[in-house]
This record gives sequence, C-alpha cells and structure tokens, in this order.
Amino acid sequence: MNLSKNDIDNLEHTFAINLINSITGIKPANLIGTSDLNGSQNLAIFSSIFHLGSKPPLIGFVTRPSKKVIRHTLSNILETKFYTINHIPPQYTKNAHLTSAKFEKEISEFDTCGFTSELKDNFCAPFVKESAIKIGMKYVDSIPIVHNNTTIIIGEVENITIDNNSLIDNNGNIDLSHSSGVSGLHTYYSLLKENSYAHATLKEHAIK
Amino acid sequence: MNLSKNDIDNLEHTFAINLINSITGIKPANLIGTSDLNGSQNLAIFSSIFHLGSKPPLIGFVTRPSKKVIRHTLSNILETKFYTINHIPPQYTKNAHLTSAKFEKEISEFDTCGFTSELKDNFCAPFVKESAIKIGMKYVDSIPIVHNNTTIIIGEVENITIDNNSLIDNNGNIDLSHSSGVSGLHTYYSLLKENSYAHATLKEHAIK
Repeated sequence: MNLSKNDIDNLEHTFAINLINSITGIKPANLIGTSDLNGSQNLAIFSSIFHLGSKPPLIGFVTRPSKKVIRHTLSNILETKFYTINHIPPQYTKNAHLTSAKFEKEISEFDTCGFTSELKDNFCAPFVKESAIKIGMKYVDSIPIVHNNTTIIIGEVENITIDNNSLIDNNGNIDLSHSSGVSGLHTYYSLLKENSYAHATLKEHAIK
Repeated sequence: MNLSKNDIDNLEHTFAINLINSITGIKPANLIGTSDLNGSQNLAIFSSIFHLGSKPPLIGFVTRPSKKVIRHTLSNILETKFYTINHIPPQYTKNAHLTSAKFEKEISEFDTCGFTSELKDNFCAPFVKESAIKIGMKYVDSIPIVHNNTTIIIGEVENITIDNNSLIDNNGNIDLSHSSGVSGLHTYYSLLKENSYAHATLKEHAIK
C-alpha cells in the first residue's frame, strides 16, 4: 500500500485516525493517577508518554485540546502539581482500556474499572496497586503546540517503585515482560525481550 | 525497590541513565533517514518518536543538545526539510543499533550497518528498503525544551508505504508483528498482539 499526501488527506475518518495513531509503532501503555484538592481520584490510560531526558529525569506526554471537554487528568495535575505513571500489566489491559470512557468527575475509575488505589508517603496522587512499576511525578511545565492545539505536559520523576527486584537488573535496566504496549487506540501487545546489545562503537561496524 | 527523589539523585551514573531511559515502558524502535543537499545520506536509530495528532497527521521526536556534537540527522532535516521514519524489523535490531555509533558525516550508515537505501518519487530523504512500514515526513517546527536543552522536532506525514497489505486491517490498524520495541538504550523487544477492544463506553464499566 502506497499513500500520498493527497490519499492521506482523503482517507475515511476512522481509517485515518487508526492509521495515523498506529503508524509510529508500539507505544507504552500507562495509567496516569491524579487527585483533586478534595481527594477525588482519577485514573486514565495514556499512550503518549515519552522519555524526555535523564538528568534531570524528565518525562513528557501529550494531551488533547482541553477547551471542549473537561480533562480531569490535566485539571487535577494543574491543581495539585503531582501525578503518577503506572505500567499496565498484560492481564489488566481490558480494565485499563475502560478508563478511556467519559466518566463524570466524581466517579473514580479506580473502583469502576477494577483497580486498587494506593497512597504512599504523603504523595498526594494515587498509585495503581496492580502495577509492577510505578512512578511518582511532579509537574514542571506545559508546552502548547500551536499546530494542532495539543499540549505537551512535562514532569520530573519524584520517586520510583518496582514491586519485584527481579524486574530490574544490576545496571538499572527494567524488564518489561510485566508491562504492555499499545498500537493505535485499542490494540494491546505483550512484550518479549529478544536482544540486548552493548553501546555501539565504530569497531563493530562490519557486520554485513 | 523504592527510590525517593534523593535516592534517584544519588544513583550511580550508568544505573541512573538505564533506569530513567527504561522507566516509561516500551518505546518504538525506528530509523530516521536523511540526506544533505549534496545527497550524502544518514541513518540513525531513534526511540523517542511519538504520535502528536491525527488531523493534521503530526509526529514528534526528541533530539539531544546539539551544541557539543554535530547531529547529522538534525542538521540534514533543517537543511532539506524532509526525512523518513522506518520501522525496524525484529531481525534487524543489531544492524539498527549500530547506527548509534558516531560515524563521520561522509560515511553512510546505510552501507556500513547493512541497510539498503531506497529513493522514491522525488522525495529527497532516503527510505530503508528492509522496513515493512515507512513514513515520508516534512519538517514543521522545532520546540526548544529549556529544562534540559533538548529539542522536540515536529513533522507532518507526507506519504506512507506498507510493504504488505496483510500488515494493515480494513479499519486502518497496523499490525506491529514485523516491527520492534526498545527498552532504555540497548534492549530490544518483539511485539505480540494480545487483544483489541472497542471504543470504551460507560455501559461496559461493571467488569470487576
């Protein structure tokens, strides 16, 4: 299949949304946990979380235009300045997918979608007990993207919880076999470790 | 394992780099192909490519600070305004990983790392013949991130090539079984499709 710019511009709407959402390859499947200042909790699936840098430890994610629909995750982050990022175990992808339904603000997706809220050490945003890998985040900045009215939210890692030490090796590499990937808007993948290579140098280049 | 902000700040350097690079979960493994105005080609692996929006079809990726090291991919994009994004087949992850070595500008990573350059339809950036899914991109904007001196490069999808029609379904969803994921800086994963769910609605919420 070869699609030109003109072909892409004229694709049927749902086909175009699915294609463009899946064309970049696998995306990490994460749940973002937040709370408002009254303690009302929210949980929502995000596939746009990306590594922005290690020193300081910064993570970004993309939010859709916020004018038309009240975005509970975003409003809670801006209100409290804290949130959590939680990996989705492969056996919980159906539950996680349901958090994308449009619940009223007073409804907690934790209860409704079958997850357990976990509060720790005075951190004001709730973690997901069922997640093997959890990150506590502090809000840093919002970067408006004028080209499509999205916003990139930047946060700094405040704390990390890894339930089982077998999921991290002696060099700090996390095993993703208990985490999930997502393609497009609704297709979930499990992750199978295949290879790990040393830092690439010019000495190795003759492998053809 | 529980790591506080203070623990994270005091981690051994390599451990910290590996941990923070793998903590967000799986990342898509893609090769970006570029050319300078003289036709000298460059190919480099990027794990920071993310979906920014569907209408218009926008894709972002993160580049490291460019002042100290000449970044061939970035300078070529700014020079020609075009680049390609190519999925990495699971059997080519070692070749793709080698593109991260610091080659001189006049050396083409296509030849040196075992990939075949493919030019099509007057598009000035080279595609990777071995990739099953290829995207032609037009540069749109550079967003400086002041917090860590990185830059987010935004591009618009110009064309899409999918080698085999069996890799895309009737709704536009791409099958990622011929694509790869990466965790951190050097660990590669294959992708196994597990489930696909319908658009989530409130009617389904009682699944506990």
